[in-house]
Amino acid sequence: MKRRTFLAAASSTVAASTLSAPAISQGIRELKLVQSWPASVTYANALFARLIAESSDGRMKIKTYSAGELVDAFEVFDAVAEGIADMYHSAEVYWRDRSPAFEFFNTVPFGLTSIEVSAWMQHGGGQELWDELSANFNIKPFLFGNTGVQMGGWYRKEMKSVEEFKGLRIRYPGMGGDVMRRLGATVVLLPPSEIVPAMKSGALDAAEWSGPNYDLASGLHTAASYYYYPGFHDPGNANSLGINRELWNDLSASERSIIATAAETTLSRVTGYELNARMRALPVLLKEHGVQLRKFDDDLLRAFGKISGEVAAEVGNSDPFTRRVYESYMNFRRLSREWVDISERAYLNARDLDFPYDG
Amino acid sequence: MKRRTFLAAASSTVAASTLSAPAISQGIRELKLVQSWPASVTYANALFARLIAESSDGRMKIKTYSAGELVDAFEVFDAVAEGIADMYHSAEVYWRDRSPAFEFFNTVPFGLTSIEVSAWMQHGGGQELWDELSANFNIKPFLFGNTGVQMGGWYRKEMKSVEEFKGLRIRYPGMGGDVMRRLGATVVLLPPSEIVPAMKSGALDAAEWSGPNYDLASGLHTAASYYYYPGFHDPGNANSLGINRELWNDLSASERSIIATAAETTLSRVTGYELNARMRALPVLLKEHGVQLRKFDDDLLRAFGKISGEVAAEVGNSDPFTRRVYESYMNFRRLSREWVDISERAYLNARDLDFPYDG
Repeated sequence: MKRRTFLAAASSTVAASTLSAPAISQGIRELKLVQSWPASVTYANALFARLIAESSDGRMKIKTYSAGELVDAFEVFDAVAEGIADMYHSAEVYWRDRSPAFEFFNTVPFGLTSIEVSAWMQHGGGQELWDELSANFNIKPFLFGNTGVQMGGWYRKEMKSVEEFKGLRIRYPGMGGDVMRRLGATVVLLPPSEIVPAMKSGALDAAEWSGPNYDLASGLHTAASYYYYPGFHDPGNANSLGINRELWNDLSASERSIIATAAETTLSRVTGYELNARMRALPVLLKEHGVQLRKFDDDLLRAFGKISGEVAAEVGNSDPFTRRVYESYMNFRRLSREWVDISERAYLNARDLDFPYDG
Repeated sequence: MKRRTFLAAASSTVAASTLSAPAISQGIRELKLVQSWPASVTYANALFARLIAESSDGRMKIKTYSAGELVDAFEVFDAVAEGIADMYHSAEVYWRDRSPAFEFFNTVPFGLTSIEVSAWMQHGGGQELWDELSANFNIKPFLFGNTGVQMGGWYRKEMKSVEEFKGLRIRYPGMGGDVMRRLGATVVLLPPSEIVPAMKSGALDAAEWSGPNYDLASGLHTAASYYYYPGFHDPGNANSLGINRELWNDLSASERSIIATAAETTLSRVTGYELNARMRALPVLLKEHGVQLRKFDDDLLRAFGKISGEVAAEVGNSDPFTRRVYESYMNFRRLSREWVDISERAYLNARDLDFPYDG
């Protein structure tokens, strides 16, 4: 939806008063937070709202709205840009039609893991580029969580070679979807609620949604048997908080610091929350529901990797600004990979060797 | 040093006024932060102090002291317990003589990685156990940073089998040192400044300090040629912030929230800071200083792993409280390892396969 059309549509459904500056009464600032997720996804918002209320001694309050309550899931960006809401909680991949650069602030196939994303943002120039990009849309962005490495999707049959992706009808998001297209798959971008029915009816052969916790809740295991890893297309899915930039500039230094530290605390907690939820959901899927866990074999991963590099380069060279983001991201990736190979990777492989540990 | 002795010693060197409650003048609360690190380690403290000052609109101020300025490096715990300082920045392994349980809040050989440590603390019951432990010493603890997987140390010769550890004079901390002892090594716990001279004089054959950034700064590459990975003994070294518990209970809900969110923001930033600093220091060591990078081979890692399990079990069964910590930690580790194996580990291995990526 175009900006103007959206604003007109919003004006007709939302009371005019909500288009004004954030409500301040009796010294209390009330901020509207809209999200792209349904009402069931509440951990991050509830935590963030509590931290803001506590740190500000009640002078700032966050009122949260689930997708559809104030604006629809994918209208949150425009709603915040226009001041209909004050903040959004979403994922930047959804704004790839505004600028391809946004995808680099969500996830990149064979790109950075969650820790690397944070390090690039904080210490490698990522946040400055994101600020510059989002300022064009009247938004100040923050990291707000990271799911870690996702799963590689649910498949109704075993996937043993690249040939089997030809003609496959698959739900796969962002640049990961671009990789699937180049392998000859037909990428279908269904909303989450329609995935399971489409799999069951045969309209869809495969689908990626998230990780064991959300996949279990969505019932994907009732529609397909084979659960593939690793999620090469989504090694560290960053959630984001976007704040109306005029509002942000209007805040006091203290209010800005309270919001920034609450957002970064939310990033830290959500990242841990996801790991904890996923590790507990995985055995439920495998042991209680008989899901068949499969690893993409190395030849397949090499093919995915080569095409992922081509897709990232093509998206990264879309325009001069996106090229700056791409180059910054890739330079960080090159250095980080060398270090992570001998630290996290080597350690996790060592921990996986067979030796008695538990005493 | 015993508590009473320490207090007496401190009283004689520190002005009596510093033993009183935190200074409050004109509504401004000044808090003293002491650390176990030298003045060169300032990133975390400077960030934390800035966030607290900004969020509180100048009503709380942190004054930071490096090791030796107000109290010595390993006296910070007692100093905060007694109210001589308000907060410490240190690593919990240093208090293992008070309770063996403290080590589980710093690092464990073949234990949790940085993300797993955070997730266990936040969502797996770790923080509650740490609170219970530290309350016995009048301290309220927080995570304050994580270095990630460390290196396995500097060696003057190649280490090809467990036999070569017999009689080796090595600096290795905590439970990692216990593992070395069981292999027949002599563990020498020199302070950082004495490591390089001891290596050069031949008094020490090997030493572990940290990762490429701090190792480069310490000049370890001038004293030994072989740099081993992975740091099996230290997969996610947590730094901690400890606050005098009476002070903590005295703070308003707003002050507590400002401190807690600033501490967790510091955790997030320091973790990214370490990754960024390490990835940039590694090529300097390898390319400019000709350091020989070596991986502990799998047989060696299996031997380390088996002994690490025995050491963790022995430490973990020291007393009933430590046993509760050990069991909570190990239960989390068991579930997390299963999930991390197919997510982070499988992904990092896939990213390391040979395929063209960079465009």
